[in-house]
Amino acid sequence: MEKGKMIYEGKAKQMFETENRNEIIVRFKDDATAFNAQKRGSFKLKGEMNNAITSLIYDYLGKKGINTHFIQKLNEREQLVKKVTIFPIEVVVRNYSAGSMAQRLGIEEGIKSPVTIFDLCYKNDALNDPLINDYHVLFLGLATQEELEEIYQLAEDINILLIDLFDKMNLRLVDFKIELGKTTDGKIVLADEISPDTCRLWDKDTLKKLDKDRFRRDLGEITEAYVEVYKRLLKALN
Amino acid sequence: MEKGKMIYEGKAKQMFETENRNEIIVRFKDDATAFNAQKRGSFKLKGEMNNAITSLIYDYLGKKGINTHFIQKLNEREQLVKKVTIFPIEVVVRNYSAGSMAQRLGIEEGIKSPVTIFDLCYKNDALNDPLINDYHVLFLGLATQEELEEIYQLAEDINILLIDLFDKMNLRLVDFKIELGKTTDGKIVLADEISPDTCRLWDKDTLKKLDKDRFRRDLGEITEAYVEVYKRLLKALN
Repeated sequence: MEKGKMIYEGKAKQMFETENRNEIIVRFKDDATAFNAQKRGSFKLKGEMNNAITSLIYDYLGKKGINTHFIQKLNEREQLVKKVTIFPIEVVVRNYSAGSMAQRLGIEEGIKSPVTIFDLCYKNDALNDPLINDYHVLFLGLATQEELEEIYQLAEDINILLIDLFDKMNLRLVDFKIELGKTTDGKIVLADEISPDTCRLWDKDTLKKLDKDRFRRDLGEITEAYVEVYKRLLKALN
Repeated sequence: MEKGKMIYEGKAKQMFETENRNEIIVRFKDDATAFNAQKRGSFKLKGEMNNAITSLIYDYLGKKGINTHFIQKLNEREQLVKKVTIFPIEVVVRNYSAGSMAQRLGIEEGIKSPVTIFDLCYKNDALNDPLINDYHVLFLGLATQEELEEIYQLAEDINILLIDLFDKMNLRLVDFKIELGKTTDGKIVLADEISPDTCRLWDKDTLKKLDKDRFRRDLGEITEAYVEVYKRLLKALN
């Protein structure tokens, strides 16, 4: 797989063209940012772990019938994926209160929700990725009503599969963020990544956080947490 | 109608018990606040105008089949209404972009929306009345799924009737905020007020603002704008 020119560089990933115009290479960096890049850091093995974890999870989801952009892991930091046009919407799926939702509603973290919560955020750094609703999506033309319904269904299906997977890893899936894209042939697929960068994962027994909150909240042992998630994932999938 | 003890004092209104435990008196004050009471003022005739306008509008909506808390206007500043338990949700209905939505999405004001926009805000001063979604409502138990559906339907019906009414007044209904409550016999009704305090009303020809934005944005001629809306309303209803 020949790596072509870089077509995108984000906070945690780079993307490169390939000889196939429908496929790109994603390279996971060790850089970490939080709070809309106001906090920055870098830590060892983060890129490798997120690449490995995302690869395993997307492979698992694909086998369970979820359409994803994932094709294959190429090496420690890189994976080959289908080229998609990303919907400028972050979908946050929540099973327990935490993070921005807990702050917004003035409640404690870790309260189990009686319903699965779906928060839509407008991917727009200048606006600080604000929470929006379905009507805003339609107003801005970020997706059609039909696309939105498909996105919600996909998010719900993924949540059910992930709860089950993380349960086997003795992890509570508090919440996670996904991004969806449209392939060149018009199919809506799961894109981006699913990793400790994009999930809140708490050990079911100790409630220890094994995710990016260790970086956001200066809890230390960041690399260790990501490696631990990877190890448990390997074990659960075997 | 004997006025009993004051049971509530808000930013713009007071409420008093009556001899009938299912009815209360609402008294409209001249006080104005904006930006979660960070900006304060008071202007002549505001209370009278909002009482008169709300009375006429609720009477009009009632005749068109909308359940409201309104019983009758008592005098210049007061009206008699059914006692309700207010849902701690503000429903903002938008036909054009403006205010907090325009800010949130980083867009101009006055853009016509292809769909009616419904924003739910959690009535909570300490949290600055944050935007929430249906899932947050269910999580917090602010309303049930069935109640929420009834609230959306009511808001949509009211919007259609108000667009028509304000059109006759040569006013563009940009957006408006309503509050809903449950009567002692369990019926969901329109409560609170509908006035230039709670609507954005732009003259259709000049786009001059005839609403509380004159106060929020220091545009002057506040009393004149409220009186103008009242006069046009009287004419449209005759």
